[in-house]
Amino acid sequence: MDFTIRAATLEDCKDISRMILELAEHEKVSDQVKITQRDLEQDGFSKNPFFHGIIAEVPEHHKSREGHTKVGYSLYFYTYSSWKGRAVYMEDLYVMPEFRGKGIGKALMSKVSQLGLAAGCTQLNFTVLDWNKSSLDFYLKQGCWDVTSDLGYHCMRCEGDALEHLAQGDL
Amino acid sequence: MDFTIRAATLEDCKDISRMILELAEHEKVSDQVKITQRDLEQDGFSKNPFFHGIIAEVPEHHKSREGHTKVGYSLYFYTYSSWKGRAVYMEDLYVMPEFRGKGIGKALMSKVSQLGLAAGCTQLNFTVLDWNKSSLDFYLKQGCWDVTSDLGYHCMRCEGDALEHLAQGDL
Repeated sequence: MDFTIRAATLEDCKDISRMILELAEHEKVSDQVKITQRDLEQDGFSKNPFFHGIIAEVPEHHKSREGHTKVGYSLYFYTYSSWKGRAVYMEDLYVMPEFRGKGIGKALMSKVSQLGLAAGCTQLNFTVLDWNKSSLDFYLKQGCWDVTSDLGYHCMRCEGDALEHLAQGDL
Repeated sequence: MDFTIRAATLEDCKDISRMILELAEHEKVSDQVKITQRDLEQDGFSKNPFFHGIIAEVPEHHKSREGHTKVGYSLYFYTYSSWKGRAVYMEDLYVMPEFRGKGIGKALMSKVSQLGLAAGCTQLNFTVLDWNKSSLDFYLKQGCWDVTSDLGYHCMRCEGDALEHLAQGDL
């Protein structure tokens, strides 16, 4: 199947927002999604954007059952390792279920890797849920390794009242 | 003990580089550090920096045994969650051993939290090594939670030849 991978624009935010919800439903956490189309427009497409995006698009005659031609996306941003320097972080990688198995996910990931290398990055980082075996297998097959299993890195988070208290220095 | 927390400047890169090595030695991975003072200067203090930094400094009369007054640092950058939006990532948090237990680490973390909240972030994220119990306890006491243990998130990485192959799309 023909498809194209291209940089996301402001006009893609409606479809990105739709697909973020589809991905969250797949991960069984759609109630966790607080981000709207408007947030994506503001945070990704103004000066000093917080993220960048790429879109996978199919021709009109291959559109989805619901009529969508934007069938996959990835969000990414640049980060930094104090050991290895410039890195790119892939926040999401999603392809609609009816378009899987056609190389679209791999093409999206390849594009993020290209962009990262072009920016001088030496690492592509991302996270995966440990129960999501098909994704984990896909990534391992691409030559990725599991930093948590191999080195013992744990992702930590502070948010809500705890973050406010921490900022106020009164814990 | 008096100390100040302030934004890092180009002139701090020598000390940040020294402390990055000290931290890596503590984590038993100093051979992994490829980043030099020059890299920090280029990547953190040019247009579109890959990271920001803050420095903990003590007065001259409290200098370390080796004569250092810059005794702690944190590197951070802004990231994005497709569920929750703007986030700040704390790449490193380090205080020299002889200056620990004086609230400097907490003050550095507090400052990163303040900067994140001021930028509209709702999350502070970072990683910790699972064998580093004293750090883990410190963070849990500040109200942070372990996303890996609680939700099963694993950090994944692609680098070197695997990243090149992925970018070329030929795996």
